[in-house]
Amino acid sequence: MARYAPSIGRLITELAKLPGIGGKSAQRLAFHLLGQPEEQVAALAEAILDARKTIRLCSVCCNLTDQDPCEICASPARDRTMICVVENPRDVASMERMHEYKGLYHVLHGAISPMQGVGPDQIRLRELLARLRQDDAVHEVILATNPTVEGEATALYLARLLKPAGILTTRIAHGIPMGGDLEYADDVTLARAMEGRREIG
Amino acid sequence: MARYAPSIGRLITELAKLPGIGGKSAQRLAFHLLGQPEEQVAALAEAILDARKTIRLCSVCCNLTDQDPCEICASPARDRTMICVVENPRDVASMERMHEYKGLYHVLHGAISPMQGVGPDQIRLRELLARLRQDDAVHEVILATNPTVEGEATALYLARLLKPAGILTTRIAHGIPMGGDLEYADDVTLARAMEGRREIG
Repeated sequence: MARYAPSIGRLITELAKLPGIGGKSAQRLAFHLLGQPEEQVAALAEAILDARKTIRLCSVCCNLTDQDPCEICASPARDRTMICVVENPRDVASMERMHEYKGLYHVLHGAISPMQGVGPDQIRLRELLARLRQDDAVHEVILATNPTVEGEATALYLARLLKPAGILTTRIAHGIPMGGDLEYADDVTLARAMEGRREIG
Repeated sequence: MARYAPSIGRLITELAKLPGIGGKSAQRLAFHLLGQPEEQVAALAEAILDARKTIRLCSVCCNLTDQDPCEICASPARDRTMICVVENPRDVASMERMHEYKGLYHVLHGAISPMQGVGPDQIRLRELLARLRQDDAVHEVILATNPTVEGEATALYLARLLKPAGILTTRIAHGIPMGGDLEYADDVTLARAMEGRREIG
Protein backbone atom coordinates (compact mmCIF):
# COMPACT_ATOMS: atom_id res chain seq x y z
CA MET A 1 0.00 0.00 0.00
CA ALA A 2 1.48 3.30 -1.07
CA ARG A 3 1.72 5.76 1.79
CA TYR A 4 0.60 8.66 -0.38
CA ALA A 5 -1.20 9.25 -3.63
CA PRO A 6 1.45 9.26 -6.41
CA SER A 7 1.18 13.01 -7.05
CA ILE A 8 1.84 13.77 -3.37
CA GLY A 9 4.80 11.38 -3.42
CA ARG A 10 6.23 13.11 -6.47
CA LEU A 11 5.77 16.55 -4.90
CA ILE A 12 7.59 15.43 -1.76
CA THR A 13 10.42 13.95 -3.85
CA GLU A 14 10.84 17.18 -5.81
CA LEU A 15 10.74 19.38 -2.71
CA ALA A 16 13.29 17.16 -0.95
CA LYS A 17 15.79 17.91 -3.72
CA LEU A 18 16.03 21.53 -2.53
CA PRO A 19 19.05 22.40 -0.38
CA GLY A 20 18.38 22.24 3.36
CA ILE A 21 15.00 20.53 2.86
CA GLY A 22 15.02 16.99 4.23
CA GLY A 23 12.34 14.33 3.91
CA LYS A 24 10.31 15.53 6.89
CA SER A 25 10.39 19.19 5.83
CA ALA A 26 9.47 18.23 2.27
CA GLN A 27 6.46 16.34 3.61
CA ARG A 28 5.42 19.30 5.76
CA LEU A 29 5.77 21.71 2.82
CA ALA A 30 3.83 19.38 0.52
CA PHE A 31 0.88 19.08 2.90
CA HIS A 32 0.98 22.82 3.47
CA LEU A 33 0.75 23.45 -0.28
CA LEU A 34 -2.13 21.00 -0.63
CA GLY A 35 -4.02 22.98 1.99
CA GLN A 36 -3.45 26.36 0.29
CA PRO A 37 -5.87 28.10 -2.09
CA GLU A 38 -5.24 27.09 -5.70
CA GLU A 39 -4.22 30.60 -6.87
CA GLN A 40 -1.57 30.83 -4.12
CA VAL A 41 -0.08 27.52 -5.25
CA ALA A 42 -0.23 28.58 -8.90
CA ALA A 43 1.57 31.83 -8.01
CA LEU A 44 4.46 29.86 -6.50
CA ALA A 45 4.75 27.49 -9.46
CA GLU A 46 4.60 30.40 -11.87
CA ALA A 47 7.21 32.41 -9.97
CA ILE A 48 9.56 29.40 -10.14
CA LEU A 49 9.09 28.87 -13.88
CA ASP A 50 9.14 32.56 -14.68
CA ALA A 51 12.33 33.29 -12.75
CA ARG A 52 14.14 30.30 -14.25
CA LYS A 53 13.04 31.35 -17.74
CA THR A 54 13.77 35.08 -17.62
CA ILE A 55 16.94 35.08 -15.55
CA ARG A 56 20.36 34.55 -17.14
CA LEU A 57 23.90 35.73 -16.54
CA CYS A 58 24.92 39.29 -17.38
CA SER A 59 27.49 39.05 -20.19
CA VAL A 60 29.61 41.70 -18.46
CA CYS A 61 29.61 40.93 -14.72
CA CYS A 62 28.09 37.41 -14.67
CA ASN A 63 25.47 38.46 -12.11
CA LEU A 64 21.95 37.02 -12.47
CA THR A 65 19.78 39.38 -14.47
CA ASP A 66 16.65 39.64 -16.60
CA GLN A 67 18.28 42.12 -19.00
CA ASP A 68 21.72 42.08 -20.62
CA PRO A 69 23.84 43.91 -19.60
CA CYS A 70 22.37 43.93 -16.10
CA GLU A 71 20.89 46.99 -14.42
CA ILE A 72 24.12 47.73 -12.54
CA CYS A 73 26.43 47.34 -15.55
CA ALA A 74 24.06 49.45 -17.68
CA SER A 75 23.60 52.22 -15.12
CA PRO A 76 25.36 55.52 -15.96
CA ALA A 77 25.36 56.34 -12.24
CA ARG A 78 27.91 53.65 -11.35
CA ASP A 79 31.61 54.31 -10.95
CA ARG A 80 33.29 52.38 -13.76
CA THR A 81 36.78 52.60 -12.27
CA MET A 82 36.24 49.88 -9.67
CA ILE A 83 35.10 46.28 -9.80
CA CYS A 84 34.14 44.41 -6.66
CA VAL A 85 34.72 40.66 -7.08
CA VAL A 86 32.30 38.45 -5.12
CA GLU A 87 31.63 34.72 -5.00
CA ASN A 88 27.91 34.69 -5.75
CA PRO A 89 24.86 36.82 -6.63
CA ARG A 90 23.69 36.89 -3.02
CA ASP A 91 26.85 38.81 -2.16
CA VAL A 92 25.94 41.49 -4.70
CA ALA A 93 22.56 41.79 -2.98
CA SER A 94 24.31 42.20 0.39
CA MET A 95 26.66 44.87 -0.95
CA GLU A 96 23.78 46.76 -2.58
CA ARG A 97 21.81 46.67 0.66
CA MET A 98 24.63 48.73 2.20
CA HIS A 99 23.99 51.63 -0.28
CA GLU A 100 27.65 52.68 0.00
CA TYR A 101 29.41 51.06 -2.91
CA LYS A 102 28.83 52.71 -6.27
CA GLY A 103 31.23 50.73 -8.47
CA LEU A 104 30.68 47.65 -10.61
CA TYR A 105 30.73 43.97 -9.69
CA HIS A 106 32.05 40.69 -10.96
CA VAL A 107 30.39 37.47 -9.80
CA LEU A 108 32.67 34.42 -9.82
CA HIS A 109 29.92 31.86 -9.07
CA GLY A 110 32.11 30.01 -6.64
CA ALA A 111 35.61 30.00 -5.24
CA ILE A 112 38.69 27.96 -6.01
CA SER A 113 38.52 24.74 -4.01
CA PRO A 114 40.95 21.99 -5.02
CA MET A 115 39.32 19.71 -2.43
CA GLN A 116 36.02 19.89 -4.30
CA GLY A 117 37.66 19.85 -7.71
CA VAL A 118 36.91 23.51 -8.41
CA GLY A 119 39.85 25.10 -10.21
CA PRO A 120 40.23 28.57 -11.72
CA ASP A 121 38.52 27.34 -14.90
CA GLN A 122 35.36 26.24 -13.10
CA ILE A 123 34.54 29.75 -11.88
CA ARG A 124 34.03 32.95 -13.87
CA LEU A 125 37.66 34.07 -13.63
CA ARG A 126 38.36 34.07 -17.34
CA GLU A 127 35.44 36.45 -17.89
CA LEU A 128 36.94 38.86 -15.33
CA LEU A 129 40.37 38.77 -16.96
CA ALA A 130 38.89 39.32 -20.43
CA ARG A 131 36.87 42.20 -19.06
CA LEU A 132 39.95 43.83 -17.52
CA ARG A 133 41.89 43.40 -20.75
CA GLN A 134 39.19 45.12 -22.79
CA ASP A 135 38.34 47.88 -20.36
CA ASP A 136 41.04 50.43 -19.51
CA ALA A 137 38.76 52.41 -17.21
CA VAL A 138 39.17 50.01 -14.27
CA HIS A 139 41.69 51.25 -11.71
CA GLU A 140 40.86 49.07 -8.75
CA VAL A 141 39.71 45.50 -8.21
CA ILE A 142 38.29 44.91 -4.73
CA LEU A 143 38.44 41.27 -3.71
CA ALA A 144 35.35 40.60 -1.59
CA THR A 145 35.38 36.81 -1.62
CA ASN A 146 34.44 35.20 1.70
CA PRO A 147 37.02 34.90 4.51
CA THR A 148 37.02 31.11 4.17
CA VAL A 149 39.90 28.90 3.01
CA GLU A 150 38.42 28.84 -0.52
CA GLY A 151 37.64 32.55 -0.60
CA GLU A 152 41.11 33.45 0.65
CA ALA A 153 42.77 31.15 -1.88
CA THR A 154 40.71 32.71 -4.66
CA ALA A 155 41.62 36.24 -3.53
CA LEU A 156 45.31 35.35 -3.39
CA TYR A 157 45.20 33.69 -6.79
CA LEU A 158 43.49 36.72 -8.33
CA ALA A 159 45.85 39.18 -6.63
CA ARG A 160 48.86 37.37 -8.11
CA LEU A 161 47.31 37.44 -11.57
CA LEU A 162 46.31 41.11 -11.43
CA LYS A 163 49.36 42.68 -9.83
CA PRO A 164 51.66 42.23 -12.85
CA ALA A 165 48.93 43.86 -14.97
CA GLY A 166 49.36 47.01 -12.90
CA ILE A 167 45.82 47.07 -11.51
CA LEU A 168 45.38 48.16 -7.89
CA THR A 169 44.09 45.05 -6.13
CA THR A 170 42.60 45.37 -2.64
CA ARG A 171 41.01 42.97 -0.16
CA ILE A 172 38.09 43.92 2.09
CA ALA A 173 39.00 44.24 5.78
CA HIS A 174 38.42 41.44 8.25
CA GLY A 175 38.14 41.91 11.99
CA ILE A 176 35.68 42.06 14.85
CA PRO A 177 32.18 42.65 13.48
CA MET A 178 30.44 45.84 14.61
CA GLY A 179 28.39 45.14 17.71
CA GLY A 180 30.51 42.02 18.24
CA ASP A 181 32.31 41.14 21.42
CA LEU A 182 36.09 40.61 21.74
CA GLU A 183 35.39 37.90 24.28
CA TYR A 184 33.54 35.79 21.75
CA ALA A 185 35.74 36.46 18.71
CA ASP A 186 37.72 33.47 17.45
CA ASP A 187 41.52 33.63 17.39
CA VAL A 188 41.85 34.03 13.63
CA THR A 189 39.40 36.94 13.54
CA LEU A 190 41.14 38.57 16.47
CA ALA A 191 44.55 38.14 14.83
CA ARG A 192 43.14 39.69 11.64
CA ALA A 193 41.69 42.57 13.63
CA MET A 194 45.09 43.23 15.29
CA GLU A 195 46.92 42.94 12.00
CA GLY A 196 44.55 45.41 10.31
CA ARG A 197 44.70 48.02 13.09
CA ARG A 198 44.80 51.70 12.16
CA GLU A 199 45.73 54.92 13.85
CA ILE A 200 42.71 56.85 15.06
CA GLY A 201 42.06 60.28 16.44
CA MET B 1 18.41 50.39 -7.36
CA ALA B 2 16.48 47.15 -6.94
CA ARG B 3 18.53 44.49 -5.24
CA TYR B 4 17.23 41.78 -7.57
CA ALA B 5 15.59 41.48 -10.94
CA PRO B 6 11.79 41.58 -10.38
CA SER B 7 11.28 37.90 -11.23
CA ILE B 8 13.87 36.86 -8.62
CA GLY B 9 12.21 39.14 -6.08
CA ARG B 10 8.84 37.58 -6.77
CA LEU B 11 10.25 34.06 -6.47
CA ILE B 12 11.81 34.91 -3.10
CA THR B 13 8.52 36.43 -1.90
CA GLU B 14 6.56 33.33 -2.90
CA LEU B 15 9.07 30.93 -1.35
CA ALA B 16 9.13 32.94 1.89
CA LYS B 17 5.38 32.29 2.29
CA LEU B 18 6.08 28.59 2.91
CA PRO B 19 6.06 27.47 6.55
CA GLY B 20 9.50 27.39 8.17
CA ILE B 21 11.10 29.24 5.26
CA GLY B 22 12.34 32.69 6.28
CA GLY B 23 13.73 35.45 4.09
CA LYS B 24 17.28 34.11 4.07
CA SER B 25 16.24 30.54 3.27
CA ALA B 26 13.91 31.78 0.54
CA GLN B 27 16.81 33.67 -1.01
CA ARG B 28 19.05 30.60 -0.82
CA LEU B 29 16.35 28.39 -2.38
CA ALA B 30 15.68 30.94 -5.13
CA PHE B 31 19.35 31.17 -6.15
CA HIS B 32 19.61 27.39 -5.99
CA LEU B 33 16.67 27.03 -8.36
CA LEU B 34 18.14 29.60 -10.75
CA GLY B 35 21.28 27.49 -10.91
CA GLN B 36 19.45 24.24 -11.66
CA PRO B 37 18.86 22.75 -15.13
CA GLU B 38 15.59 23.97 -16.60
CA GLU B 39 13.93 20.53 -16.69
CA GLN B 40 14.62 20.03 -12.97
CA VAL B 41 12.95 23.35 -12.17
CA ALA B 42 10.03 22.55 -14.47
CA ALA B 43 9.62 19.18 -12.72
CA LEU B 44 9.24 20.94 -9.37
CA ALA B 45 6.73 23.49 -10.67
CA GLU B 46 4.75 20.76 -12.38
CA ALA B 47 4.73 18.53 -9.28
CA ILE B 48 3.35 21.46 -7.27
CA LEU B 49 0.58 22.24 -9.76
CA ASP B 50 -0.25 18.62 -10.43
CA ALA B 51 -0.52 17.65 -6.77
CA ARG B 52 -2.70 20.66 -5.97
CA LYS B 53 -4.95 19.87 -8.93
CA THR B 54 -5.39 16.11 -8.52
CA ILE B 55 -5.54 15.87 -4.74
CA ARG B 56 -8.79 16.37 -2.84
CA LEU B 57 -10.38 14.98 0.32
CA CYS B 58 -11.76 11.44 0.38
CA SER B 59 -15.52 11.75 0.89
CA VAL B 60 -15.40 8.89 3.40
CA CYS B 61 -12.33 9.42 5.61
CA CYS B 62 -11.30 13.00 4.68
CA ASN B 63 -7.73 11.90 3.94
CA LEU B 64 -5.97 13.52 0.96
CA THR B 65 -6.40 11.38 -2.13
CA ASP B 66 -6.36 11.39 -5.92
CA GLN B 67 -9.32 9.01 -6.17
CA ASP B 68 -12.61 9.02 -4.29
CA PRO B 69 -13.07 7.01 -2.11
CA CYS B 70 -9.36 6.84 -1.31
CA GLU B 71 -7.23 3.73 -1.77
CA ILE B 72 -7.57 2.74 1.88
CA CYS B 73 -11.36 3.23 2.07
CA ALA B 74 -11.78 1.38 -1.25
CA SER B 75 -9.51 -1.55 -0.36
CA PRO B 76 -11.29 -4.85 0.33
CA ALA B 77 -8.28 -5.92 2.41
CA ARG B 78 -8.95 -3.41 5.20
CA ASP B 79 -10.79 -4.26 8.40
CA ARG B 80 -14.01 -2.22 8.31
CA THR B 81 -14.79 -2.70 11.97
CA MET B 82 -12.29 -0.14 13.24
CA ILE B 83 -11.63 3.51 12.51
CA CYS B 84 -8.46 5.21 13.68
CA VAL B 85 -9.04 8.95 14.18
CA VAL B 86 -5.99 11.13 13.52
CA GLU B 87 -5.39 14.88 13.31
CA ASN B 88 -3.86 15.11 9.84
CA PRO B 89 -2.86 13.20 6.69
CA ARG B 90 0.77 12.94 7.83
CA ASP B 91 -0.42 10.83 10.76
CA VAL B 92 -2.05 8.37 8.35
CA ALA B 93 1.30 8.09 6.56
CA SER B 94 3.03 7.40 9.89
CA MET B 95 0.50 4.72 10.83
CA GLU B 96 0.77 3.07 7.41
CA ARG B 97 4.55 3.03 7.68
CA MET B 98 4.10 0.75 10.70
CA HIS B 99 2.39 -1.96 8.55
CA GLU B 100 0.47 -3.19 11.60
CA TYR B 101 -2.88 -1.46 11.46
CA LYS B 102 -5.33 -2.87 8.93
CA GLY B 103 -8.44 -0.84 9.79
CA LEU B 104 -9.79 2.40 8.33
CA TYR B 105 -8.97 6.01 9.19
CA HIS B 106 -10.66 9.30 9.77
CA VAL B 107 -8.66 12.51 9.35
CA LEU B 108 -9.92 15.44 11.42
CA HIS B 109 -7.65 18.08 9.80
CA GLY B 110 -6.85 19.68 13.11
CA ALA B 111 -7.75 19.42 16.77
CA ILE B 112 -10.12 21.37 19.00
CA SER B 113 -8.28 24.45 20.24
CA PRO B 114 -10.42 27.15 21.86
CA MET B 115 -7.29 29.32 22.21
CA GLN B 116 -6.93 29.42 18.42
CA GLY B 117 -10.65 29.62 17.79
CA VAL B 118 -10.89 26.05 16.51
CA GLY B 119 -14.10 24.45 17.76
CA PRO B 120 -15.67 21.06 16.95
CA ASP B 121 -17.25 22.58 13.82
CA GLN B 122 -13.92 23.69 12.34
CA ILE B 123 -12.54 20.16 12.11
CA ARG B 124 -13.98 17.11 10.31
CA LEU B 125 -15.90 15.81 13.31
CA ARG B 126 -19.33 16.01 11.76
CA GLU B 127 -18.16 13.81 8.89
CA LEU B 128 -17.00 11.18 11.40
CA LEU B 129 -20.31 11.21 13.27
CA ALA B 130 -22.30 10.97 10.03
CA ARG B 131 -20.11 8.10 8.95
CA LEU B 132 -20.67 6.22 12.20
CA ARG B 133 -24.43 6.77 11.97
CA GLN B 134 -24.56 5.33 8.46
CA ASP B 135 -22.18 2.44 8.96
CA ASP B 136 -23.10 -0.27 11.47
CA ALA B 137 -19.95 -2.30 10.77
CA VAL B 138 -17.74 -0.11 12.97
CA HIS B 139 -17.14 -1.62 16.38
CA GLU B 140 -14.18 0.39 17.58
CA VAL B 141 -12.98 3.98 17.22
CA ILE B 142 -9.31 4.39 18.12
CA LEU B 143 -8.46 7.95 19.10
CA ALA B 144 -4.92 8.62 17.86
CA THR B 145 -4.85 12.41 18.16
CA ASN B 146 -1.56 13.83 19.43
CA PRO B 147 -0.77 13.81 23.15
CA THR B 148 -0.92 17.63 23.26
CA VAL B 149 -3.46 19.77 25.10
CA GLU B 150 -5.49 20.12 21.87
CA GLY B 151 -5.21 16.47 20.90
CA GLU B 152 -6.23 15.33 24.39
CA ALA B 153 -9.18 17.71 24.44
CA THR B 154 -10.31 16.44 21.06
CA ALA B 155 -10.00 12.82 22.19
CA LEU B 156 -12.00 13.52 25.34
CA TYR B 157 -14.68 15.39 23.42
CA LEU B 158 -15.02 12.55 20.92
CA ALA B 159 -15.04 9.89 23.63
CA ARG B 160 -17.96 11.63 25.38
CA LEU B 161 -19.89 11.85 22.12
CA LEU B 162 -19.30 8.24 21.11
CA LYS B 163 -19.80 6.43 24.40
CA PRO B 164 -23.59 6.97 24.57
CA ALA B 165 -23.78 5.60 21.01
CA GLY B 166 -22.40 2.32 22.31
CA ILE B 167 -19.24 2.33 20.20
CA LEU B 168 -16.06 1.02 21.84
CA THR B 169 -13.79 4.07 22.03
CA THR B 170 -10.11 3.59 22.80
CA ARG B 171 -7.10 5.89 23.11
CA ILE B 172 -3.62 4.92 21.94
CA ALA B 173 -1.12 4.32 24.78
CA HIS B 174 1.30 6.98 25.96
CA GLY B 175 4.49 6.27 27.83
CA ILE B 176 8.24 6.02 27.52
CA PRO B 177 9.13 5.68 23.81
CA MET B 178 10.98 2.51 22.82
CA GLY B 179 14.69 3.10 23.02
CA GLY B 180 13.98 6.08 25.25
CA ASP B 181 15.53 6.66 28.63
CA LEU B 182 13.64 7.04 31.92
CA GLU B 183 16.18 9.62 33.00
CA TYR B 184 15.24 11.96 30.18
CA ALA B 185 11.49 11.39 30.19
CA ASP B 186 9.40 14.36 31.31
CA ASP B 187 7.13 14.04 34.34
CA VAL B 188 3.88 13.85 32.43
CA THR B 189 5.15 11.08 30.15
CA LEU B 190 6.49 9.19 33.15
CA ALA B 191 3.18 9.58 35.00
CA ARG B 192 1.36 8.29 31.92
CA ALA B 193 3.73 5.35 31.68
CA MET B 194 3.10 4.43 35.32
CA GLU B 195 -0.63 4.85 34.95
CA GLY B 196 -0.68 2.61 31.88
CA ARG B 197 1.43 -0.18 33.41
CA ARG B 198 0.49 -3.80 32.71
CA GLU B 199 1.26 -7.15 34.24
CA ILE B 200 3.92 -9.06 32.35
CA GLY B 201 5.36 -12.55 32.39
